[in-house]
Amino acid sequence: MRYSPLITDLYELTMLAGYLEEGMEDTPAVFDLFFRHNPFKGGYAVFAGLDTALAYLEELRFNEEELAYLSGLGLFTSRFIDYLRGFRFRGTVTAVSEGTIVFGRESLVTVEGTLAEAQFVETALLNILNFQTLIATKSARVCHMAGNAAVIEFGLRRAHGPDGGLSVARAAYIGGARSTSNVEAGFRYGIPVKGTHAHSWIMAFPDELTAFRKYADVFPDTCILLVDTYDTLKSGIPHAITVAKELRVRGHELAGVRIDSGDLAYLSREARRMLDEAGFTQARIVASNEIDEYVIESILAEGGKVDIYGVGTRLATGMGEGGGALGGVYKLVRIGDKPKLKVTSDIAKATLPDRKRLLRAVAPDGAFLMDIMALQDETILPGDLVYNPANPLERKQIPADARQEELRQVVMAKGKRTAASPTLDAIADRCADQRARLPQGCLRHVNPHIYKVSISRGLNDLRNQLMEEVERGYE
Amino acid sequence: MRYSPLITDLYELTMLAGYLEEGMEDTPAVFDLFFRHNPFKGGYAVFAGLDTALAYLEELRFNEEELAYLSGLGLFTSRFIDYLRGFRFRGTVTAVSEGTIVFGRESLVTVEGTLAEAQFVETALLNILNFQTLIATKSARVCHMAGNAAVIEFGLRRAHGPDGGLSVARAAYIGGARSTSNVEAGFRYGIPVKGTHAHSWIMAFPDELTAFRKYADVFPDTCILLVDTYDTLKSGIPHAITVAKELRVRGHELAGVRIDSGDLAYLSREARRMLDEAGFTQARIVASNEIDEYVIESILAEGGKVDIYGVGTRLATGMGEGGGALGGVYKLVRIGDKPKLKVTSDIAKATLPDRKRLLRAVAPDGAFLMDIMALQDETILPGDLVYNPANPLERKQIPADARQEELRQVVMAKGKRTAASPTLDAIADRCADQRARLPQGCLRHVNPHIYKVSISRGLNDLRNQLMEEVERGYE
Repeated sequence: MRYSPLITDLYELTMLAGYLEEGMEDTPAVFDLFFRHNPFKGGYAVFAGLDTALAYLEELRFNEEELAYLSGLGLFTSRFIDYLRGFRFRGTVTAVSEGTIVFGRESLVTVEGTLAEAQFVETALLNILNFQTLIATKSARVCHMAGNAAVIEFGLRRAHGPDGGLSVARAAYIGGARSTSNVEAGFRYGIPVKGTHAHSWIMAFPDELTAFRKYADVFPDTCILLVDTYDTLKSGIPHAITVAKELRVRGHELAGVRIDSGDLAYLSREARRMLDEAGFTQARIVASNEIDEYVIESILAEGGKVDIYGVGTRLATGMGEGGGALGGVYKLVRIGDKPKLKVTSDIAKATLPDRKRLLRAVAPDGAFLMDIMALQDETILPGDLVYNPANPLERKQIPADARQEELRQVVMAKGKRTAASPTLDAIADRCADQRARLPQGCLRHVNPHIYKVSISRGLNDLRNQLMEEVERGYE
Repeated sequence: MRYSPLITDLYELTMLAGYLEEGMEDTPAVFDLFFRHNPFKGGYAVFAGLDTALAYLEELRFNEEELAYLSGLGLFTSRFIDYLRGFRFRGTVTAVSEGTIVFGRESLVTVEGTLAEAQFVETALLNILNFQTLIATKSARVCHMAGNAAVIEFGLRRAHGPDGGLSVARAAYIGGARSTSNVEAGFRYGIPVKGTHAHSWIMAFPDELTAFRKYADVFPDTCILLVDTYDTLKSGIPHAITVAKELRVRGHELAGVRIDSGDLAYLSREARRMLDEAGFTQARIVASNEIDEYVIESILAEGGKVDIYGVGTRLATGMGEGGGALGGVYKLVRIGDKPKLKVTSDIAKATLPDRKRLLRAVAPDGAFLMDIMALQDETILPGDLVYNPANPLERKQIPADARQEELRQVVMAKGKRTAASPTLDAIADRCADQRARLPQGCLRHVNPHIYKVSISRGLNDLRNQLMEEVERGYE
């Protein structure tokens, strides 16, 4: 699973060649990775993909075949190709832990190193972190709505390629999905794998009852029968009950039924009633077919009886308003000894300069109150005034009884990880714990509460000063 | 770039185990791959991904590490694991050529073989073909709107993983994009790669003019300057003109400028005017920033002067109404000597049974008139009546002067390709040729003309007969 160094935008290489030509390749530089808006117009995001990104950084190197290709483009000098031959990432990475709840504008990852190495990794870091964060967030939204019902990730056939499907399974698990249909994700990441049969199994036999019986013969203890091939209530459920009775005589219990079409609220209610009346209260009801947090909400509102949601397309592609892609960006915040910012006509899009801390003010009971970005060496105390980064006139005081959690740690130094990777279960647990500590209104999937992300006085002052310098520069 | 056999839904394996247990693994079976609705609520789709899919089928085999994982799941017998050790795809594949314009309900790929092999490959084929077809279609829509302006695929950083980004570049090229920023796509597929520099290049120097000059020094002949870091019209374009003059003195021409934010219609018009007035009519204007067919339409409507569109996020993720994923499915249409169909309460969703032909009726001038699905051995003649598959009361006559193009060929027999893969350029040319022959109204991106896809009398009769059999079965 090597992530080729060529999986990058060409401009990373042309810039590198330029820096080498100008003798700037070893100038110290600091880049911040962040997104501006929470995905899905939601109240939060779940940071994911860091372990994948760190593996990429550790293993980054060009092989001869790749160098030959680049050389053949006619764009680069042989000196540059030689430079790439020895090119490694030996920088420092400071990052939020995977599974952490994060918000727009927060510096999630800071890469510090030579201008060459810190610039070059931009595209790969964005590719990895944008996607996994998008999917982990979607998964958290779906799992929050599902409540006690379990969520299985089912989206491989609609995911964006094989590797897309694999990352989906990983990120969905971080966000709260308990299992996946994707066998490779079980193999690579140890995620529990689930699945029984398709409509084609039913159609491969003379009739539905025979198909159910044959499946139950082979998997008597894990048998979930797909009941909607012909008619869910007239045919599928009655046949499933027949098989459940036959299984029980032989000392097994039907695991459940799956409904993959139609009115899932109505059909699940009726299926539950029929199964219960026949004495199969243990049989679980799995629902699938274009499910997402909105569909689950409507199923619940109509009294649906679903135990497990199989969530495919809309999870695997991160669909939804404000979804489909996370707009993470990677911006230069310091070069040499100079803090930098990018201004635009829209002050809300101006970047935040320099090395930073990301702090979370937490109530005595553990609830999250607000996040604060400050300069690296700035001391932040309860009671301090902090500023809305989009409008410094909006100030807020850090509550006097708040304690501070430092959200970022150095995770890589000199190109090597500073600690072993947490397990995927630890990451998923972190996400669940964080979700529980978030203001309830942030979890709402329509018009959520906007969690406050503020900047410190020091950061606000530095930004103002740099903006004035820039504006003077082109007057 | 091995596509692991574990990149599949678990149920493909549990079904395989079931078929082996029942002695049905070698029963002959035929599956059809199709989608029901054109993506983006559009008038057509561009079929893509076949070469990737055929490579997967040819190379399909489990290694010992993968078998050990499956064995450890506790679901499968050692007999089944042994069976998988020798498992290969040795079936026949009939498919539409890549780059062909296709429509909802058409059987795009038919897989014929043993029940085991034909069933197992479902998830992988859907994963590969759904995604590439989605992106090739989006690319065709964007390129159609761009007209004579070129389209560069820029989406890697927002694509769904590294491999997702690679497939995007391939499919976008098929749909009409002329180049990509993704270097790996150049390396693997020979797609031309493009790119110059980011905002960070500008910020790494004391001022914009210095940054432009330095870049032009290194790449005097391919230099496209990013002009929106500070202020496009007050700073970026005047500095680009200064550098263009300096380049010309040294015998080079500025290749162009790139605008990545703001009002692209207005800024491109002003930039064009300023460049022309300064004598740099050769300098091209590249526009980027959340571009898709709708944005291009509005830029054109407002008289924007864009020569090249850099299209990223919305192309790479196939965003748009009715986008994000293509809902392709894979259905059993024949088993043993029995044609099969899946009925549902919605007749429009009933599948079309048995082996089929897919014909395109073409006018004497080459324009596409209608598509017809017929039984494999059925003869279709001009003047024949054909039926709307969703409503057989709607009939149409094949025009008397139409000739027929057979849209599908056998592309794999006994698990081996029957011909060398066409080049990516040949596939892209096919797509362009097909687009030109499609009724103009199908290319419209809002409320397009609905191209007729009909079924023959033989197929209609067979479906009616099978539906009656099924309905009698559960009365």
